[in-house]
Amino acid sequence: MDNFNFYSPTFFAFGKERENEAGSLTKRFGGSKVLIVYGGGSVVRSGLLDRVKASLEKEGIAYVLLGGVQPNPRSGLVYEGIELCKKESVDFVLAVGGGSTIDASKAIAAGVVYDGDFWDFYCGKPIENALPIGTILTIAAAGSEGSPDSVITHEDGMLKRGASGDAIRPKFSILNPALTQTLPAFQTACGITDIMAHLYERYLTNTVEVEVTDRMIEALMLTLIHEGPRVIEDPDNYEARANIMWAGMMAHNNSCGVGRSQDWNSHNIEHELSALYDCAHGAGLAVTMPAVFTYVCQHDIMRFAQAAVRVWGCQMDLYHPEVTAKAGIEALRNFLISIGMPKNFAELGAKEEDIPYLVNTLCNGNGRGGSISGFVTLDEEDCSKIYQLMV
Amino acid sequence: MDNFNFYSPTFFAFGKERENEAGSLTKRFGGSKVLIVYGGGSVVRSGLLDRVKASLEKEGIAYVLLGGVQPNPRSGLVYEGIELCKKESVDFVLAVGGGSTIDASKAIAAGVVYDGDFWDFYCGKPIENALPIGTILTIAAAGSEGSPDSVITHEDGMLKRGASGDAIRPKFSILNPALTQTLPAFQTACGITDIMAHLYERYLTNTVEVEVTDRMIEALMLTLIHEGPRVIEDPDNYEARANIMWAGMMAHNNSCGVGRSQDWNSHNIEHELSALYDCAHGAGLAVTMPAVFTYVCQHDIMRFAQAAVRVWGCQMDLYHPEVTAKAGIEALRNFLISIGMPKNFAELGAKEEDIPYLVNTLCNGNGRGGSISGFVTLDEEDCSKIYQLMV
Repeated sequence: MDNFNFYSPTFFAFGKERENEAGSLTKRFGGSKVLIVYGGGSVVRSGLLDRVKASLEKEGIAYVLLGGVQPNPRSGLVYEGIELCKKESVDFVLAVGGGSTIDASKAIAAGVVYDGDFWDFYCGKPIENALPIGTILTIAAAGSEGSPDSVITHEDGMLKRGASGDAIRPKFSILNPALTQTLPAFQTACGITDIMAHLYERYLTNTVEVEVTDRMIEALMLTLIHEGPRVIEDPDNYEARANIMWAGMMAHNNSCGVGRSQDWNSHNIEHELSALYDCAHGAGLAVTMPAVFTYVCQHDIMRFAQAAVRVWGCQMDLYHPEVTAKAGIEALRNFLISIGMPKNFAELGAKEEDIPYLVNTLCNGNGRGGSISGFVTLDEEDCSKIYQLMV
Repeated sequence: MDNFNFYSPTFFAFGKERENEAGSLTKRFGGSKVLIVYGGGSVVRSGLLDRVKASLEKEGIAYVLLGGVQPNPRSGLVYEGIELCKKESVDFVLAVGGGSTIDASKAIAAGVVYDGDFWDFYCGKPIENALPIGTILTIAAAGSEGSPDSVITHEDGMLKRGASGDAIRPKFSILNPALTQTLPAFQTACGITDIMAHLYERYLTNTVEVEVTDRMIEALMLTLIHEGPRVIEDPDNYEARANIMWAGMMAHNNSCGVGRSQDWNSHNIEHELSALYDCAHGAGLAVTMPAVFTYVCQHDIMRFAQAAVRVWGCQMDLYHPEVTAKAGIEALRNFLISIGMPKNFAELGAKEEDIPYLVNTLCNGNGRGGSISGFVTLDEEDCSKIYQLMV
């Protein structure tokens, strides 16, 4: 196990009706004038936005509104939010929505207290300061409610890039599983796929002797395998949604990723797809992961075989471990298809002829020098072959 | 799953040589005059205390020393520490040791800023304020490095009682697995047993639909089963110790215990043993747990059967689930014996004739009204039968 720091100081308020504590929690963590960031109409239609406003008003907290966050959130809205915060002297950013809304809120919170262009943080500059952030989560997926990470797409070139820093960890996150019950099955499944990807990205490591985090990752994967089909079958299953929601947070606050090298190649390869086609991130990951894992499997057959046996219930073929390893990848693919995820470029709306563009942006964009690194270093030829596997 | 709050804001610095950051971390979290609390000679002999002092001096941080914390830490030393802090205007408490040292430090930190008797907190008064605390852990066991809990034995009546509050959560905890390599095998095994108990106390729940936390608890149990024998066989196995150390923290910061009722009857039943006989807490738990579980097993056969199958690798006997449940308890007992733990009163140094005293103190001490509650409510007769099972 490698040396590491672990710091996850977010206060989590989990369960039914906890959104009614938005006001008291904002006050507790120092907010007096709040920017409420949200996405589309569902937050308004469901009455959630009104409940949040009422909770703030009850505590005498003023607010301004910024709606319209899109999936794969864009730089334009971030710039707009930063200006609004400065103009209105906002001292707290409250995200009401999913990963996109939270990530946009993080970018705004960091940008407000920074003299330069917020995009600098997404080009590698460390985030050292930000307005405090709170979140009210409406989809279990990105894990942004408990993470120091944010992913934004810059409209100039449609570059999708990430930034990170403890300053943008939420001060509090409200997780009410009931708020996710109105999600369409497709979005629910995209969320489950994103959580599964956060787990695989940590599972694929070159660090040896990491039994405790291996086991924890496997535990969360097993939870998704049990609860995923239940929630797709019955969208109103509060208990299944609750288990998935806590798994989603635990999958990405890094308590199960500490002390080990991680992968993140699947995320990087997918980001090009959702940036170009504006497809759902989870859907892109569903197509990406089996292709990447099939391609890199030889790098550590036993790691994939371990997942196959411990997570997917495959029999270990001791004489042919590669058979077991591949059976595990196939089981993942079948699981994702079973919950309604796409399986190839066609179902995703991606085009084979774009592969050279995807590979070039992936491997040479954002200062990369012709390859991406993780569990395995992948050059342009590797990435091209991986995209071909998805066709 | 029940509604819950989760808040674990401790900064964890994990790995080799991290104790050299004691000074910079104390500074970061606001300490300028420190009380260093430690136990016996090993912290001195190993040179650890000197390294910690040097690290503080490097940052210009003053300190006073309080050694002599015993296992099952006593109220006398806490009173002494509180006086010393007041006299020396200490503003930060740094624990260098195991659970006993950390628990004593927490009691001191809470007592310094309280006008009354610190024991009030151990009789149920909420802890709302305390000096900031840092820890340098030397044994993986109690989980106190990441918990809001403290257990102290009052010398007046030898009552062993717990207190809890976010104010006594450590601001930082330094976890260097190498510091545990000099521990005798018996103490190492006691620590593993204590961690296993923290997991079982959470596993035994009356809350339904808690797959995610069930799976996480099982993951940490599986880690102990894998790493425990390795570290007993080879005390210098850094990797095994690292996995156990992180499992110990995760087992008790409550990330795997949220949203579910918990048990804690084994701890309560054991506390009477270590209070009366001053035996090691882990050793007491090794004798207590199989007896308690055997006695309460009928309350939820399937829960014990699930542990048997998922954790202990037993075959599920679908026609006789109680056979599987009992096989799991037997596997736990054999595991504890295999790492060198005692199996009965005689090996623990406890006496059958003390059972009436133990039962009375347990069920009627500290304001309890004739029973203890948890997974199952146990009255005096139940507790007497459980102690008899240990003879």
